[in-house]
Amino acid sequence: MREPVEASTPRSRKRTAYAAATRTFDMDKLTAPAERVETFIARWLEARPLPENLRRAIRYALLAPGKRLRPILTLHAAEAVGGRADDALAPAAAVEMIHAFSLVHDDLPAMDDDDLRRGRPTLHKQAGEAMAILAGDAMLGLAVEVVLEQVVPPDRAAAVCRELILGCNGMIAGQVYDTLPEPEAPEDAAARLLRIHRHKTGALIRASCRMGALCGGAGDAQLERITRYGDAIGLMYQVIDDLLDVTQTTEHLGKTAGKDVDQCKLTYPALYGVEGSRNEAERLREEALAALDMMGAEADPLRQLCDYLAVRTR
Amino acid sequence: MREPVEASTPRSRKRTAYAAATRTFDMDKLTAPAERVETFIARWLEARPLPENLRRAIRYALLAPGKRLRPILTLHAAEAVGGRADDALAPAAAVEMIHAFSLVHDDLPAMDDDDLRRGRPTLHKQAGEAMAILAGDAMLGLAVEVVLEQVVPPDRAAAVCRELILGCNGMIAGQVYDTLPEPEAPEDAAARLLRIHRHKTGALIRASCRMGALCGGAGDAQLERITRYGDAIGLMYQVIDDLLDVTQTTEHLGKTAGKDVDQCKLTYPALYGVEGSRNEAERLREEALAALDMMGAEADPLRQLCDYLAVRTR
Repeated sequence: MREPVEASTPRSRKRTAYAAATRTFDMDKLTAPAERVETFIARWLEARPLPENLRRAIRYALLAPGKRLRPILTLHAAEAVGGRADDALAPAAAVEMIHAFSLVHDDLPAMDDDDLRRGRPTLHKQAGEAMAILAGDAMLGLAVEVVLEQVVPPDRAAAVCRELILGCNGMIAGQVYDTLPEPEAPEDAAARLLRIHRHKTGALIRASCRMGALCGGAGDAQLERITRYGDAIGLMYQVIDDLLDVTQTTEHLGKTAGKDVDQCKLTYPALYGVEGSRNEAERLREEALAALDMMGAEADPLRQLCDYLAVRTR
Repeated sequence: MREPVEASTPRSRKRTAYAAATRTFDMDKLTAPAERVETFIARWLEARPLPENLRRAIRYALLAPGKRLRPILTLHAAEAVGGRADDALAPAAAVEMIHAFSLVHDDLPAMDDDDLRRGRPTLHKQAGEAMAILAGDAMLGLAVEVVLEQVVPPDRAAAVCRELILGCNGMIAGQVYDTLPEPEAPEDAAARLLRIHRHKTGALIRASCRMGALCGGAGDAQLERITRYGDAIGLMYQVIDDLLDVTQTTEHLGKTAGKDVDQCKLTYPALYGVEGSRNEAERLREEALAALDMMGAEADPLRQLCDYLAVRTR
């Protein structure tokens, strides 16, 4: 996502039927805030007293190459409601910490048992399993800390932190729904899939958007629009993720492809087929854009990000 | 700790030289708040939407028989500064959640690899390793959530939550210092031991006390006294813990005794001998009581708790 992406390549035109596929994005501009978040994280992490090996482990997991989707959403959401991205840097850093924590714990041998993440050895392969458990715990805790330390005034800090932790807790619940399903659950597959994804991916993306909006000083109506946008792209993100798992290579993704099929996972392509899943992604893209209808040009980066996420290939 | 304890038994008189050993405590009264915290936790956990298997796992770990030292400190600290214990119930529950999360993760095979906790199978033995990892993560997140949801007004919620997470993050750092020491560390053993314990046990006990004081509406001077008290008993608690590991049986403790020696751990008895450690515990008891000198009878439960902790046998 950091390098300029031409969405209208022959490959993506062939693979996507919808309008977004023929657009081009100034990805450098759209993802520029990622660097500010990375710099903020690096500096904050350097200044925070920590055991040096824990600091190294956190930096390894947290500043690995990544899309930084969630913090970018946070910063763009702050600007979309008329605020300043700078006022949302701490929650942007925090949501990336929560995301990184979840990846580290998900990769553990007792969980997904994955050796590769973002094209590099997973943290437990790099620093040992005990450190991966503790560094994951620490990233969760530090995410809360950075918000409470940096967001002002305190009542806003409490509100933003609440969004963060609801997103985090929803994500953990989603992980349980997904990987430790209860056999007696009587619901149908479609409802189950929706519940998993609304929690596992959706909750933290919703939080990313809402935290940005809160830091940007959003009113109730603005917050509600940003929330609807976040819910739609959160689900769309996961539909696309499921699609990429069956259509892309491990090398291209930087993580093990084809895992969902190997593990007989309940996914959008498994349930609705590849074409059905693409249609659902397009429907969600339109839903996200519709949520922003009443907003001005300040919301354009969110619109473009939505379009980009609909055609991303990794 | 829940049953009445006679501190002046022949055994404790023989084992402890200091004045506290000849006192008796109304332990029922002193630990009565534990039941209110357990009831609060049970109700809150029941009402919070969660995957049912995650709820069961959290309840198993969180409501296992335990001393509830940290939440009791929180409630007594609120009253010691002239506030109401009821206003500190949420942070009391939260600190127990953080404590329980740390025990669950510490017990994992990649960490201490312990099968027994509080006299029962550890959570990963009971519910599997993946669930233990996720339930630990969830307890950390839910601890933050319950504070932000229940403590009012919002600026107090932010301040209390900040104490909670500083305690949690300090504890995690202490766990790293303790179990994953860096070979190149040049400091001497005494400094290392102090740093480990100030973090590993001390940080969360300090937070327990400070959260209670904040919820009780403490002024700066009161908060400072409660903090000094908390720091002293936090360290004393760990000195006694180290002593119990070498002087008590697994059956009596409800957790594996003699582990420190087996693992060649740096402990107070290893560094200062059993008598030297007892002297240090007594010094810390006096330091804790001195911190409360200027406080009235409202602080008596904290004083009695300090005396009890100095002579506890499990």
